Order: sequence, then structure tokens, then C-alpha cells
Amino acid sequence: MKLTGDLFIGGERRQSSQSFRAHDPARGVEIDDAEFHGATEQDVADACAAAEAAFLPYSTAPLEERAKFLEAIADEIEALGDALVERASRESGLPAARITGERGRTAGQLRLFAREVRDGQWQKLRIDHADKERTPPKPDLRLRMVPLGPVAVFGASNFPLAFSTAGGDTAAALAAGCPVVMKGHSAHPGTAELIATAIERAVAKTGMPKGVFSLVNGMSRSIGQALVADPRIQAVGFTGSRAGGEALMKIAAARPRPIPVYAEMSAINPVILMPQALKARGGALAEAYVASLAMGAGQFCTNPGLVLGIDGPELDAFAERAGEVLSGQAAQVMLTSGIHEAYEGGKTKLEGSPFVTKLAEGAEPAGPTQGRAALFSVAGKDFMADPVHLHEVFGASSVLVRCADLDELVGVLSELEGQLTATLQVDEGDYDAAKRVLPVLERTVGRILANGWPTGVEVTHAMVHGGPYPATSDGRSTSVGTLAIDRFLRPVSYQDMPAALLPGALRDGAQNGVVARIDGSWTL
Amino acid sequence: MKLTGDLFIGGERRQSSQSFRAHDPARGVEIDDAEFHGATEQDVADACAAAEAAFLPYSTAPLEERAKFLEAIADEIEALGDALVERASRESGLPAARITGERGRTAGQLRLFAREVRDGQWQKLRIDHADKERTPPKPDLRLRMVPLGPVAVFGASNFPLAFSTAGGDTAAALAAGCPVVMKGHSAHPGTAELIATAIERAVAKTGMPKGVFSLVNGMSRSIGQALVADPRIQAVGFTGSRAGGEALMKIAAARPRPIPVYAEMSAINPVILMPQALKARGGALAEAYVASLAMGAGQFCTNPGLVLGIDGPELDAFAERAGEVLSGQAAQVMLTSGIHEAYEGGKTKLEGSPFVTKLAEGAEPAGPTQGRAALFSVAGKDFMADPVHLHEVFGASSVLVRCADLDELVGVLSELEGQLTATLQVDEGDYDAAKRVLPVLERTVGRILANGWPTGVEVTHAMVHGGPYPATSDGRSTSVGTLAIDRFLRPVSYQDMPAALLPGALRDGAQNGVVARIDGSWTL
Repeated sequence: MKLTGDLFIGGERRQSSQSFRAHDPARGVEIDDAEFHGATEQDVADACAAAEAAFLPYSTAPLEERAKFLEAIADEIEALGDALVERASRESGLPAARITGERGRTAGQLRLFAREVRDGQWQKLRIDHADKERTPPKPDLRLRMVPLGPVAVFGASNFPLAFSTAGGDTAAALAAGCPVVMKGHSAHPGTAELIATAIERAVAKTGMPKGVFSLVNGMSRSIGQALVADPRIQAVGFTGSRAGGEALMKIAAARPRPIPVYAEMSAINPVILMPQALKARGGALAEAYVASLAMGAGQFCTNPGLVLGIDGPELDAFAERAGEVLSGQAAQVMLTSGIHEAYEGGKTKLEGSPFVTKLAEGAEPAGPTQGRAALFSVAGKDFMADPVHLHEVFGASSVLVRCADLDELVGVLSELEGQLTATLQVDEGDYDAAKRVLPVLERTVGRILANGWPTGVEVTHAMVHGGPYPATSDGRSTSVGTLAIDRFLRPVSYQDMPAALLPGALRDGAQNGVVARIDGSWTL
Repeated sequence: MKLTGDLFIGGERRQSSQSFRAHDPARGVEIDDAEFHGATEQDVADACAAAEAAFLPYSTAPLEERAKFLEAIADEIEALGDALVERASRESGLPAARITGERGRTAGQLRLFAREVRDGQWQKLRIDHADKERTPPKPDLRLRMVPLGPVAVFGASNFPLAFSTAGGDTAAALAAGCPVVMKGHSAHPGTAELIATAIERAVAKTGMPKGVFSLVNGMSRSIGQALVADPRIQAVGFTGSRAGGEALMKIAAARPRPIPVYAEMSAINPVILMPQALKARGGALAEAYVASLAMGAGQFCTNPGLVLGIDGPELDAFAERAGEVLSGQAAQVMLTSGIHEAYEGGKTKLEGSPFVTKLAEGAEPAGPTQGRAALFSVAGKDFMADPVHLHEVFGASSVLVRCADLDELVGVLSELEGQLTATLQVDEGDYDAAKRVLPVLERTVGRILANGWPTGVEVTHAMVHGGPYPATSDGRSTSVGTLAIDRFLRPVSYQDMPAALLPGALRDGAQNGVVARIDGSWTL
């Protein structure tokens, strides 16, 4: 399929006088097969107007139609075949196998949200019947969740499919009944165009209103800024840097009518080596740790950037083995030259800390944007002395924190900012100590793992991919899993509404297998 | 009971060098039986530290103990007897019967949240079992909601009991497992002290950690500002003016770690007179409208400040009858002299609009802070011409909007800001027209009523007392009813956690009648 570089504005293809090209980070060259058009302020406004016009027909269409639309997007993405894998791999530097897996995840999560739409539970139906005999009379009240309105979603650099054009936020917003205006990531415009074409086909096939999806691309930050400021946009989904997320939060808060921003921003994802586990299997833990750290050039939000243990010969052995394995890691192509530069800068800052020792480095880079893995060490008592130790270094860099004892380890954990994940390496003999650590983690993170590694994020019902600030801008939400639909909903209640005017699902006996709370009792 | 004027800081009584007195708005005089102590920055910091220290023991105590604590507060409030009713009535100018009703509501809502704590559904338990055969292996994931941390609650001028010291936000936060630091409203410090004494007794009786509740009082805005800025505070509940709410939002957004603010701020609560209903019962509607408008001197957040109808002889008759009834309304004591001044200023601004006609006024005031009801009229086509028409005038003032036809009426509704409520007066012959109006209301309001009046807010499961900006700062939430517990919770997920380390409710088979989502299915 030949790429056109078009913008997708409410079902209409557009071009503009501003253009940019994609890059191949592995080769360090421009990809010259297409010129991509940068959106103007008018394009953004038109996309938002189209989304607003689509809101009522889309959100009031039968749920079965909404579900079929999500499934059609999944089908059309798969129908793009190898062209999608090749393009996404070329624009991101990620291997084809990884992109193929990500495509499966993306289609899978669209289908999961289709099932969630049909499940209907997200409507949170509640009915309190009237009691006219009471003094004063008790009214009839019925509650359901409704969609917020048009949603702006920002593509992520590190997941060109699963967190981008038809990724998690898009799927959750569409499932909730919200049209989406997508700001494509400038690093993979061709991938975004292919996906937008798939959505365009799904819209046509299922007869959805055209404004239900738009794609605005471009290199200028003003595009995203205009999008978040547009009065028709009612919520924002973002995955990226802390600076980027905080900039969008400021714009959203300064609007005449502020809106929620769900920005996933920054995490160093502590791994805690509990003493018995470290003793029993320190070598294996060191190997698995480096594998999790270096996977995908370390470009995961849940990458283990921090590992904590109690000082002693077992921790020395762990550090030595981790250093050995890490030294053998080949340098890997990073997503963009900007990300590569930021990675090198982050490591340099860490090295500049007087408290930090470099334990090991991966192999020398063999190409322009290749990131070299790195492992540092710092004493627990010094960890809080320099805020640079707390900053995420996006890439395969990690810091080992050597704590004097469990008290110091708990103290360091208590001082951490909000995190997406924390991981306990824990054996039965550690359980008492773990019970001191867990309450601290519950206050700080979205997901707590035992004896695993944080870099897999399962798309399912009980997943939380979120966490307190600055892991995300809003710790009350998740960006992965079915609970993500909640972020684009709000409650409305209906008092003494005649049945003819009530939404169907709120009429007596019409809950059709959805769990509803009726007069306080939960009924299936 | 003799009032001491004490501050309540984490179970310790304190005094300070700054003092203030309560006022009796009906007589326009100071109440000289007690000097109240104004909190210093140190008092605020100490209260927050105590709340932080109480968080872990309070949030991890058995749910049955938490429920008993809430019930004990209700019991102790009732045990205060007539002294509470007399004091609250004197400090607010509200009649004793109204305060007695509000006391019943306050105790009732504490007991409702006690049942909600036991119900356990708010934990939103989800379990996805592992599938080790899958490639890659699927982990075991389990999710529950946990409390956010210490919460700051601000007392409201217009509900000295139900939205103040032990009011809705306090009950919801305590039910969620969050300690509360209360900023008492400076208009009713004696009432706040009495309630704080009841909570103090309940803490002692049920053995709760002392920092679970603190009360900081004072006239200075810096107290509330310091409270919202304190890093230990994790969420804010506020009911008051738009300016006050927006000031707190700004402080919360500017923190190094921003936190959610639930501010209920401003609404004009449109009532829509559908043509057939107006024709069939315009006179009765006019009388009921004025009764709802003037109740409690119009000092309800859900007061009907706007009524819309389609121009014609029926609307003329409605306006005439409403004007007649309103003219016979006695002036009523308002809550504070400041609120009375703002009310008079708001009416003056409305009168200054070139598009507005004054239809009627209530009787002349007979005392210093008495508010005089007022009814204005404006043409639908002029309504959007001056933003002054949109501003809430807190008190018994309302604007009749005369629309040329249904299109214009829908147009005016589409332009409204977010509202707590909208009310349809609707007969069967209006249903087709109502179906055009309802989707507009669903986007704009938290609660839609048919054939009632918005000024009663039932405390129950299906209530939404909330709405899009600026009705509240966060339309995803309600401040009344059991769903309010959600505002103080966030999700945490546990991956491959050994049963011995899992929270009890997440172990297999331990859901005890709570609806849980297990492997995607909802089970009771």
C-alpha cells in the first residue's frame, strides 16, 4: 500500500503545506517514500468539530454496533498484513518479531473491549425504587455511566501499535462511547497512516459516523497543545515523558473548563531483593534482572530502573553476576535519536552524582542511535541525597541500591515517588519482612509483583497500569485492561423519569444479565 | 456543654493566640459565649502529620471496626441533643426544624456508609487466574481498591451538619479508609466544635488511631491553602463558591505532586417547562417552582435559578402566577452577611443586563441579613448575549428564559455550563420533544429530574450530586450517596502474589458475598 501522508479529519483526507518525513533510526536516515502532512490549527479544530458532531450518534448507537466496530478495526489491522509490521519496525527500530507481538496485543485488546462493551457492566446500573409512603416521599432514582465526550489521544514513541493510533486509550475511549482525535507520534507517521486507514475502513464497513476518529500528525508541539485546549475535547490520554505530560496537564488545567488528563509519564519500577530469595537464587535473579532491563533497549515504562537489596556477600554476588551479564549485552537501536540523546544524558547525570559508582556497561554501540546498557550502584543512606537518583533514565540503565538493613530499605521505598510497578523477589522465609514492605508499596505503586519481572503488562481485567504521581497524572485510573473504560465515563442519575424516557438499560427488568445494584442489593 | 474554642489536632486539644467569634446572622451580632482559636501553619502541619501516622493503622483495621466507628460518630452526634440544634440554628440563621432534619440526614449518611463499608463492593475485587500453559505464561493478577491517603475536607456554609464536619465528604473519606483533616467553616465554629467532640468520643470508644480526625478552624484563607498544599494530603473535598473552589484547584495543581480536588461550586439548575405540562398545570408548576426557589432562602446548590419555556399565553400565565406567589414571600435570614451581600450584588448585576426584566420581588427585608426573593425574565435569543445570565446568584433569585420555540430552547440548553441538576416538567404529549432535550442534558448535568424539583438530594445508591465543570471540578464523581466512596479510592493490582501476602479479600474463595469479577465473569 502506497502511503499518501494524508491527515484524516473526520472521514476526509487532507493535505497541507507543512510536511515532514519519517526516520529510520537503525540506519540514521530519512525514509523518503512519503511526505507526511502536518496539521494546521484549522485541521485540529475541524477534527474536534467532527468528533463533537459524531458524539451523539456514536454514543447512542446500540452497544452491539459499537462492539462490532471495535472488532472491525481489529480485523482491518490484521488485514494490513506484513506491510504494517515492516513499516512499524522500520520507523521504530524495533524487531519485526516484537512488532508482530504488539500487533496481536493491539487487535486482542480491541476485541477485549468489544466484549467489555457487550458485557455492559461498565454502565454501573443502580436503581433505587420510590417509596411514596415515606415522609418526605422517596423518589425513584436510577444511575448509569455515560461517556465524557470527544477524547484526545497521543501516540507513544515506544509502542507504535499498542499505545498509539488504535492502542489502549483509543480502544477504551471508543468502547466508552467517546470519539477520538488522535495526535500521531511524529516518529512513526507511516504506521499511524496505515492504522488510520484500517479504522477508516472499519468506520465505512460498520456505518459509524465519520467524526468518530481523526488523525492529526505533525512535528510541531502546537498541534497537541491546540488539541488539548479545544473546548470540545473532554479528556486526554497520553503516554510519554514527564515533561510532555506535565505540559498537557497545565494546558488542561488552564482551560475555562478543565478536563481530566490521563498521562502515563515516569517510573523507575523498584525491584526488591528480599534476603532469603537473594540467598537462594541470587545468580538466577541477576540474569533475569538484566534480561528484563535490557529487553527492547530498555524502552518500557515498566523497565526495572532500580533494584534494592540488603548489603552483604549475597548482594555482592548478585551485583557481580548482573554486571557480567550486562557487559555481554549488545548495544541496541533506540526509538529515535532524541530518545537516544536523552538516554546518554541521563546516564551522564547519574555518573555525575558523587554517590554513584558505575558497576558495568554493555558492549560498545555499532550504530548511530544504539543505546549501551549500564548498571550503577549507590548506598541506601546516600540515595535520597541527590534527586538525580530518582529520575527515570528511559533506556537500559538501572541503579542498585545497597541498603544497610531492612529499616533503611523500607525508608528508601517510603521516599520514592509514585511508580507503575514494584517487584518483590521473595521466598517463604521473607514473608514477615515482606509484610513490612507491602503497605509502603501499596501507597506508592499501581501494580505489585512477586517473583516476576515488571516488563510484561498483561491486558486483562485485574491489570492496573497506572500509579500515583508522577507515574501517572491520575492514580485513580489504569491505561491497560478493561478497567480503563472507566476513565472516559461519568455518572448521571435520573429521578422519577417516566419509563418511556429512561435509557433502556435502566428500565425495570431490562438489565439483561448485567450486575445491577437494585435497592441496595447486588443482583445478577 | 460549654464551648472551649479548641482546635482538635490528632486527638489533642489546642489553643492559639489568634481568636475569632461566631456570629448570629438573624440578629446581626457576635455570639460572645466562646472565643474560637484560629489554626496556625504549625497546627495544620501537625494535623496532617497525625493523619499520615493514622493512615496505615486506620486503613488496615478490619472493615467491621471501621463501620462501627462510623456508627459511633452517628450515635455521639445524636447524643449531643438539643444543644447541637440550637447552636447550628443560631450560627446559620436556619430554623431549628431544618437543622433537626439535617442532623437526621447526617447521622443517616454515616450509618449508610457504615453499611457500605461492610458491603465491601467498593473494593471492586477482580481475580484473573494464571495460565502457565499459555505462551507466554499468563500471570495471576488480582485487583482491589485502596484508599488514597489523608483527605482535606472543607465545611460548607449552607449545610453546617450534612456538608460540614461529619458531613458527606468526611463520611465517604472515613468509609474509604482515609483519615480526615477538616477545615471548619468560619461561620459555624461552635457547631464544628460540638461535632468534633462527638467524633473525639467515637474515636475513644472504638479505639481508632487519634490522627484519624482533626479540626482546624480560623478566619484566614491561609489555613485552607496550607492544608491543600501539605504533601501528606492526597485529596480534597469542598462545597462552596466557584472562586473558592477554583483557588483550591490551582493550589492542588501547582503541588509537586498534584492531587484530586472534588469541589462542588456553582450551578443554576435549569427547569424546563415542556409545552403540554405547562398547558395542563402551569399554575401549580408556578407555585411549586417558587416554593423550591425560596426554600431555605434559596441557599441550596440545587436551587432552580433558571426556568425555560416556550413563549406564549401559557408561559405568560406561568410568569404571572410565579410573580404573584413570589411577591408574597417574606424575606429570609441568610447564612452570613457576606453571602447576603453577594446575593444583593448578584441581583444588581442581573438588573444591569440590558436584556433582563424584573418580574417580581419578595417582601421587604425586616432585618440586617435578610434576602429578598426575585424573579427576572430574559428572551432566549438574548440569553447567551451576556455571560451575567449564566452566573449563579446564590439565594432565592431566578431567571425565566422565554424561548421562541423548541429549537431555541435546545440551543440555550446546549450553551449552558455544567450543572448539578436539570428538571423536566413533562407530560406524555411532550415525550417526543423531551427526547430531543434529554441528550443535551445528559452531557451537561449530574442528575435529571422529571416532574419534581431539584432542591431535595436523596442520600442513596443511585444519587449523583455532581456534574460537569463548573458545577463541580470533577464531573466523574458524586458528593452524595454511596458512590461517593469511589472518589477516595484507587486501584492496585497484585501479580503472582503468594496467598500469604495477598490482602485477605483477594485470596481464592474469600470474597464472602462481595460481587467479584473472576476470570472475567461476575460472581456473587
